[in-house]
Amino acid sequence: MAQKPSIPKGTRDFGPAEMARRNYIFDTIRSVFRLYGFRQIETPAMEQMSSLMGKYGEEGDKLLFRIQNSGEKAAEAPEKGLRYDLTVPFARYVVQHREELQFPFRRYQIQPVWRADRPQKGRYREFYQCDVDIIGTDSLLSELELVQIVREVYSRFGIRVSLHINNRKVLAGIAEVIGEPDKITDITVAIDKMEKIGADKVNEELLERGLSREAVDKLQPILRLTGTNMQKLDAIAALLAGSETGTKGVEELREVFRLCDGHTQQDNSFRIELDLTLARGLNYYTGAIFEVKALDAAMGSITGGGRYDNLTGIFGLPGVSGVGISFGADRIYDVLCDLNLFPAATGDSTQLLFVTFGQAELQYALAWADRLRSKGVNTEVYPEPAKMKKQMGYADANRIPYVAVVGENEMQTQTVMLKDMQTGEQHPVTLQQLEQAFS
Amino acid sequence: MAQKPSIPKGTRDFGPAEMARRNYIFDTIRSVFRLYGFRQIETPAMEQMSSLMGKYGEEGDKLLFRIQNSGEKAAEAPEKGLRYDLTVPFARYVVQHREELQFPFRRYQIQPVWRADRPQKGRYREFYQCDVDIIGTDSLLSELELVQIVREVYSRFGIRVSLHINNRKVLAGIAEVIGEPDKITDITVAIDKMEKIGADKVNEELLERGLSREAVDKLQPILRLTGTNMQKLDAIAALLAGSETGTKGVEELREVFRLCDGHTQQDNSFRIELDLTLARGLNYYTGAIFEVKALDAAMGSITGGGRYDNLTGIFGLPGVSGVGISFGADRIYDVLCDLNLFPAATGDSTQLLFVTFGQAELQYALAWADRLRSKGVNTEVYPEPAKMKKQMGYADANRIPYVAVVGENEMQTQTVMLKDMQTGEQHPVTLQQLEQAFS
Repeated sequence: MAQKPSIPKGTRDFGPAEMARRNYIFDTIRSVFRLYGFRQIETPAMEQMSSLMGKYGEEGDKLLFRIQNSGEKAAEAPEKGLRYDLTVPFARYVVQHREELQFPFRRYQIQPVWRADRPQKGRYREFYQCDVDIIGTDSLLSELELVQIVREVYSRFGIRVSLHINNRKVLAGIAEVIGEPDKITDITVAIDKMEKIGADKVNEELLERGLSREAVDKLQPILRLTGTNMQKLDAIAALLAGSETGTKGVEELREVFRLCDGHTQQDNSFRIELDLTLARGLNYYTGAIFEVKALDAAMGSITGGGRYDNLTGIFGLPGVSGVGISFGADRIYDVLCDLNLFPAATGDSTQLLFVTFGQAELQYALAWADRLRSKGVNTEVYPEPAKMKKQMGYADANRIPYVAVVGENEMQTQTVMLKDMQTGEQHPVTLQQLEQAFS
Repeated sequence: MAQKPSIPKGTRDFGPAEMARRNYIFDTIRSVFRLYGFRQIETPAMEQMSSLMGKYGEEGDKLLFRIQNSGEKAAEAPEKGLRYDLTVPFARYVVQHREELQFPFRRYQIQPVWRADRPQKGRYREFYQCDVDIIGTDSLLSELELVQIVREVYSRFGIRVSLHINNRKVLAGIAEVIGEPDKITDITVAIDKMEKIGADKVNEELLERGLSREAVDKLQPILRLTGTNMQKLDAIAALLAGSETGTKGVEELREVFRLCDGHTQQDNSFRIELDLTLARGLNYYTGAIFEVKALDAAMGSITGGGRYDNLTGIFGLPGVSGVGISFGADRIYDVLCDLNLFPAATGDSTQLLFVTFGQAELQYALAWADRLRSKGVNTEVYPEPAKMKKQMGYADANRIPYVAVVGENEMQTQTVMLKDMQTGEQHPVTLQQLEQAFS
């Protein structure tokens, strides 16, 4: 009996029109990464389970896909899993290949990742990440470069964005000054939800997580600071004066803002915001934290990242500082759709289709097609002398801009009838004229 | 305790130098696919297990990787598996999306596949396939196009190849005339091993598989035909005169050879061979069968494919004929390496590195880098004023062709010292001169 075909939930097929648009996204991001001198790597889809477990928190562990060979019983299966992000495989890569690498190592990586999340709008079980990281230097120029890359990428897309910046050391300083230095993870996980669930629920959660009422009260003004980036920074600097870590975080933020002021234009399409509620769920950031939101679309974070001083430590290489960001290609796709920002030209690429009415015409068209392809013109020959309507419909459906019709007349006069599918205009042309038209 | 990092056996990391070479392969193949008007699709890494099982023979079933969610027990796990090739997912795609598609549908697909094979030289558990298929027409022009694509791709790579062609109907005809029409699978599986294990062992295997001694004897001359393609074809035509299927197969081969004679140049770098021992293990071919071998490297098949009339039938859509081939990117990589055929220019892409000796110089270099990037020059700034030797070593290791050195002198004269890393020559240039040098 025939099977009814389907794909696993949360996964997607991409047809030619979607692929053209996706390639536009990947090509744009890739060319900006290259403009800043980043080098591509790829890692396997599957990693040792031991490389993945414990890196994404308890919740993350549950979202890992496990892999086993069909021929093996579950108990004998080597522990393997699909990669959950590109950052942990990158850390593993750096440690494993450290003898071959020249630091600072600037890499980009554009590959799919898999998470057994409950699928919903904008959340898939297979999706692409576009990561760019600099590892092996603690220079804050790297933070600047990432900001510049964000600006350039979204400028090319025409998406207006705000880039939110925070610093994990500032968050640690806050935990310290409110008297809960051991609760930084609890605090940041809760703060991360500020925007989603509001201050009341965050406060509730903080109490549930064991913070004292006093500490929660002390936290409130810090979460509700207002003003310009500099005003906020001055205020937080005063509050954190007693914390060495917090003060270091404030200094880092000041330097990043100073560099950005000198080297990235802020305007109506791009602005940078100090955002003290920005924490992100992941455990490994130690310095700058970044998140990018589209100003004109309700989409959540479309790019995010930060600095991690300890990531490679878990793989046996301590003391290597890195900073990176990840562009979410699937969300960018949705934003470009919502805002109607895809360029018209990201269609399919066939330039010319030969349409014929008999076997002799088909042979004639084949020879012409050979010539055009040898000149680099993307060319198709409709493979059968089918009905005119069917062949023209094929050209329409595939948005092929020009059709060359071959009948007996054309063969006799050594021409084809060249038709512009947009205007409907047509006129006979010689092979030489056809070549020139597409050169 | 720190983990010693590793990756699952049979998988690989690709560093920047390998990626540049792999991209050269993918870009070359992709541009030829586009030259012939093929359109890209992508399907998910994971398919329903029911879509995969039984499609690759008993041995193939054992090589499927199964996937389950970490959070689920094995018994509850939905049956999912990693794709094993791109052909079955394509068939599934065509059936699932048939309402949206315009036939003939010409698609290409470049994605990794996974097989739990025992890893060995040239055989990996994760590897890329580059597939191109035409579905929805039985025109033999499609076979011609695939031959042309093979010729063009390997011509661009500079790899001399022979393209082996056979036809499954001819094999069926042979089974018929030797009196074993039901044993075609056994015969083709055995014939497929002809080159690997020799005639004696193949004959042994045929007897083991239940063929009569008489049938095996009748088979021998058919396997040992010699002469030109046309001589072989004439001989086989005579032998198969009594078989309708076999005769149809011979006619198809004749037409493909005729088309190829008219539209593909055969020379020292590309030749087409009728190869009656060519069967390939897969179950779905019904017409033409293709296989490509490099003439100057011992590598086995680097491209293969054929026509399948029934592939979409297993997903509920009978009567759709298709033909396609698959380029093995990993084997092509090895052949290009062995024959030293990679172009020198497939290195990394940074054109210019700024090297500085202090914080003021760094600021100065940043401003210049901003300008160069705005002109499209791939530029890096070494992120710290480290020792000259370290910064220069970085440029060397990453094969960056030019370095712009900034010291106090250069700042005073509003120049940089531009050094050609290949020749060692250096001279001071202004910003305008630098821009012009890279435009």
